[in-house]
Amino acid sequence: MRNITEHNITEAVIARFAACDDPRLKEVLSSLVTHLHAFVRETGLTEAEWAKGIEFLTATGHKTDDKRQEFILLSDTLGVSMLTVAQNHSKPAHATEATVFGPFHVSGAPGFDNGDDIGGGAPGEPLYVNCTVRDTDGNPVPGATIDVWQADDDGFYDVQLEGLAAHRARGTLRSNEQGRFWFRTVLPVAYPIPTDGPVGAMLLATGRHPWRPAHVHFMVQARGCDTLITHVFRDGDAYLDSDTVFGVRASLVAPFVAHKAGTGPHAGEAPGRYHTLAFDFVLSRAVGG
Amino acid sequence: MRNITEHNITEAVIARFAACDDPRLKEVLSSLVTHLHAFVRETGLTEAEWAKGIEFLTATGHKTDDKRQEFILLSDTLGVSMLTVAQNHSKPAHATEATVFGPFHVSGAPGFDNGDDIGGGAPGEPLYVNCTVRDTDGNPVPGATIDVWQADDDGFYDVQLEGLAAHRARGTLRSNEQGRFWFRTVLPVAYPIPTDGPVGAMLLATGRHPWRPAHVHFMVQARGCDTLITHVFRDGDAYLDSDTVFGVRASLVAPFVAHKAGTGPHAGEAPGRYHTLAFDFVLSRAVGG
Repeated sequence: MRNITEHNITEAVIARFAACDDPRLKEVLSSLVTHLHAFVRETGLTEAEWAKGIEFLTATGHKTDDKRQEFILLSDTLGVSMLTVAQNHSKPAHATEATVFGPFHVSGAPGFDNGDDIGGGAPGEPLYVNCTVRDTDGNPVPGATIDVWQADDDGFYDVQLEGLAAHRARGTLRSNEQGRFWFRTVLPVAYPIPTDGPVGAMLLATGRHPWRPAHVHFMVQARGCDTLITHVFRDGDAYLDSDTVFGVRASLVAPFVAHKAGTGPHAGEAPGRYHTLAFDFVLSRAVGG
Repeated sequence: MRNITEHNITEAVIARFAACDDPRLKEVLSSLVTHLHAFVRETGLTEAEWAKGIEFLTATGHKTDDKRQEFILLSDTLGVSMLTVAQNHSKPAHATEATVFGPFHVSGAPGFDNGDDIGGGAPGEPLYVNCTVRDTDGNPVPGATIDVWQADDDGFYDVQLEGLAAHRARGTLRSNEQGRFWFRTVLPVAYPIPTDGPVGAMLLATGRHPWRPAHVHFMVQARGCDTLITHVFRDGDAYLDSDTVFGVRASLVAPFVAHKAGTGPHAGEAPGRYHTLAFDFVLSRAVGG
């Protein structure tokens, strides 16, 4: 095509993918071009605004390194991550819902036995967590591997802190014969996502806060079941209705029960105030699994 | 909103921009979110594909530096740049059409007098360029500033080459009292855009070639006129119908006339074969200018 105009350019670009021998790649890129062009037309995007966009993406790329993933923050804060998760995990009734993976998971976190303290000295009030893993028929799922990770009382994940000798408030556990697993950790608090990059600037410019409600991350993997990546959110948190990454689902909000010093089930183990959380995870059986 | 689903998340994200006090930013971001989410839904984007997208953007960011702008290449090859240019420059009849700016312009290029050789030793057969600048009423436009830049016979712009002491095949000129400007340079040839980055990988994976038809870039600025950013393309080039950045407009294709050694208007100045190009630029008067 020798005369590209604002009216024929979308079909011209899509036609250029005709020789692509990966039909899915062709489908995804054709859809991307269609919707990007629709955005440029709908807004009547100016050349100065286009240049701002190029500048924003460049800064986002330069902020990203092996410890910081600014593009995931961007996808999270625009709801793209949660939309992708939600449309890939429309669960059978009663199965625990999934939410965003987030940028703070670590592969090969330390292994713990049930009952251990996974806090590793992280600051925070003690939290005792008691969970079950079951399938959608109510059968216990023994031998499941559970990854747990969370922020501490200062709102930081261990990987955000310089100079730590070992992981904190992070670990893997296994469910026992009754499908149970339990551990001690610290009480998570609400925290802002990192705001010292382009995504923080975007939130500021649009009058949005950067906060996520307090939560603990869980990834539950078991033979024959779909892997579950989710959070449990702390009921009563001020940001449950405005999580900056749109990750809250009502079914994932649970009471973190506060106990006064010297009272309740762990009175002998915790010198001061502590908290308990009970949650039952329900896995869907993998198709053909 | 405490229960985000794949069905309500788009309105939830847009609602979060309610407090943005810049109405245009709010409009642009709301439109972006709407169209990005439509893309994710239409393709049923998987989590693995989402991760590939994050990886692609990260690599694009890391390839970009002060000499290389991979995000502009991406925008160019997806037709986003040309669409933006085209919708912002719907010209009055007879005004010269605009095309993409490209990533190789340099501010403060060396100034030349009419008749000078701006090639600066760049490899290539001689090309003599003779132009006029007029307004849409046919009046000559004297004193216009013209930026010229182009690739050489190897297909490279000077800024792509390491260790050059001075600019080559790049300069600024001024139109004379008759609105004319003229200079000597080298014949541009077709060239591939840089393919050693993520954009090159995308072109390869989709069966697209990376070539642009031979052209010379012009930016023409004159008091009281809209600035014109355009190319003149070499008629007969094999890539005129498949420019990888979608920049060709029929009105910008012109004959680059070949002259045998010792014949034609510049027979005495060029020892071997040489070429001539004549082109008339027509500027639209700025609104209120």
